[in-house]
Amino acid sequence: MLNFDYDIPTKVFFGKGQLGKLGPEMKKYGDRLLLVYGGGSIKRTGLYAQVLDMLRENGIYWQELSGVEPNPRIESVREGADICKRESLQMVLAVGGGSSIDCAKYVAAAANYDGDAWDLCIDKSKIKKVLPVFSVLTLAATGSEMDCGGVITNLATYEKIGGGVADQRPKASVLDPTYTFTVPANQTAAGTVDIMSHTMETYFNRTPGTYFQDRMAEAILKTCIHYGPIAIQQPDNYEARANLMWASSWAINDFLADGKANVWTVHPIEHELSAFYDITHGVGLAILTPRWMKYVLRDETVQKFVEYGVNVWGISPDQDPFSIANEAIRKTEQFFFEELKIPSTLTQLGIGNENFERMAKKVRQVALDDGFVKLTWEDVVEIYKACL
Amino acid sequence: MLNFDYDIPTKVFFGKGQLGKLGPEMKKYGDRLLLVYGGGSIKRTGLYAQVLDMLRENGIYWQELSGVEPNPRIESVREGADICKRESLQMVLAVGGGSSIDCAKYVAAAANYDGDAWDLCIDKSKIKKVLPVFSVLTLAATGSEMDCGGVITNLATYEKIGGGVADQRPKASVLDPTYTFTVPANQTAAGTVDIMSHTMETYFNRTPGTYFQDRMAEAILKTCIHYGPIAIQQPDNYEARANLMWASSWAINDFLADGKANVWTVHPIEHELSAFYDITHGVGLAILTPRWMKYVLRDETVQKFVEYGVNVWGISPDQDPFSIANEAIRKTEQFFFEELKIPSTLTQLGIGNENFERMAKKVRQVALDDGFVKLTWEDVVEIYKACL
Repeated sequence: MLNFDYDIPTKVFFGKGQLGKLGPEMKKYGDRLLLVYGGGSIKRTGLYAQVLDMLRENGIYWQELSGVEPNPRIESVREGADICKRESLQMVLAVGGGSSIDCAKYVAAAANYDGDAWDLCIDKSKIKKVLPVFSVLTLAATGSEMDCGGVITNLATYEKIGGGVADQRPKASVLDPTYTFTVPANQTAAGTVDIMSHTMETYFNRTPGTYFQDRMAEAILKTCIHYGPIAIQQPDNYEARANLMWASSWAINDFLADGKANVWTVHPIEHELSAFYDITHGVGLAILTPRWMKYVLRDETVQKFVEYGVNVWGISPDQDPFSIANEAIRKTEQFFFEELKIPSTLTQLGIGNENFERMAKKVRQVALDDGFVKLTWEDVVEIYKACL
Repeated sequence: MLNFDYDIPTKVFFGKGQLGKLGPEMKKYGDRLLLVYGGGSIKRTGLYAQVLDMLRENGIYWQELSGVEPNPRIESVREGADICKRESLQMVLAVGGGSSIDCAKYVAAAANYDGDAWDLCIDKSKIKKVLPVFSVLTLAATGSEMDCGGVITNLATYEKIGGGVADQRPKASVLDPTYTFTVPANQTAAGTVDIMSHTMETYFNRTPGTYFQDRMAEAILKTCIHYGPIAIQQPDNYEARANLMWASSWAINDFLADGKANVWTVHPIEHELSAFYDITHGVGLAILTPRWMKYVLRDETVQKFVEYGVNVWGISPDQDPFSIANEAIRKTEQFFFEELKIPSTLTQLGIGNENFERMAKKVRQVALDDGFVKLTWEDVVEIYKACL
């Protein structure tokens, strides 16, 4: 286990009807706020009206940034930062899923930056002062509600960059599982994969002596496997939504990664897919993950796949390691493509091989050099091809 | 899953040589400190000298409260609070195990209280302002380094009371596994049981829909089962000490308990044992736990024991539930008494049945009424008797 500094101060108001606790918490930081949200879904569900009531009750002045995209774009960040500067806003509240929260985090950073907001995505050392960020979560997926990261897309440069600094971590988040009852089946499925993928990015790791973190990771994977299909079949099953929501936060809030040398591989490979084609992130991850697993399975890695197979999928340990590993990958595929009903190939999404080389060459070198298994851009092309 | 407010802001500097990070962190809160520790072990290991160097380097003035007892007594709390008041100290740093940290937490509360410190143990609503608490941990056991609780003993009234408020949670703790290399085998064993017992107190619980928390609890139990014996056989095995240390914090920092109606049973029953006989807490817990398990195993509870047996001990699920449950209890006994080599009976500790009724009647009623299984004081006497 490596040294680490654990520091996750986000408060979480978890459960039915907890929204009311957010107002007094935000008032500790100011009374002028930017409200950030995506499409109209929070208006249809009535959550938007509840949030406005909460702001009024607490005497908080607000401006709005709406229409944040599913893969939030730098243009939205720029617009939000402009509003904050113009209106001297003191904090940013995202109401939505990871996209709105990610956008809010970069708006909060760009509001105190004189140059172009994209600079902060490219070079996080330029992020100096960040407005306090809060969130009301409506989708269990990205974990942005409790981590300090965000992913912003620049379609002009075909770039999708993830990053963040400690001050971008939300001060407080409301996690009310009932807000996710209206999430449709396909988004529930993609969100479940996203949680699992965050967990796997740190689980499949070469740092020795991280038994505690690995068992914790398996707890999250099992939670997703248990409740993902239930949430799809019974969208208003509170326990399923609650368990998935809480799992989403812990998959990526640094808890699992603390103590590990942790460089992600599959996400960076997927980010090029959604930067080029604007597909749903969780769908891209589901298609890529089993192919990546098969590609990196070898003598040096098989033991980790045995752990995964035995502890997560309940495969009997009394077998040849490669049999266990392959069975674990088969079960992963079966879960993503049969139980969660996610498209199993890029072809099904209308994506061909025309950009594979260009995409593969754009994947950050550190993700290929220092991930679970060292890869080249040519390996990435092979993984993309296996997804057709 | 029940509603909860998650709020665990403790920073943790984890790993070899992390002590240096504590000084700058403490300086944010002041420069006059009470240093709290127990016997001479931190002087023998050299940690005491390192801590004094760290205080000097950061220009922090300090006074000392030393000789804190293994079950810290109210007299030490009173003495520490007097020093804080007399010297206008601004914060409290415990260097040691749970006893020193628990004592520090109540010193920090009593320093701002005009009456007798014992009032604050009896009625936590009287705790108003608490000096910032910090800790340097030297024993993986109580989890006091990251929780807001403490247990103080009043031998004059035969009382041992646990409690605490949010502000007593340490602002920052140093968890350097090398500081536990010198912990002797019997204390390592008792500490491992303490971690497991904290975990079980929330794991054996009737709140439905806490799958996520239960799998997390199993991760901690498995960590203890895996590394407890290694740490005993190889006291300077860094990975074993590191995993146990991090597990100790998460067993009781509220993470596992959030979302559950959580009233502990075995700890309150044990507290009377150590209040009457001043025995090592973890030893009392090891002796009591399997007897309590057998006593509460019944049709309504057997499913939880099946989960425990299958997920923690790897028992095959293809058996009669009671067979799995009994096998799980047998494995628990075997682990405590054979692998960890803890005395298996009260008789071995020289304790007879002379005070069982008196002790049983002192166990807090809420622990008996609202625990995993409702018990009477007569039931507690039976459990004590089974420990002879």
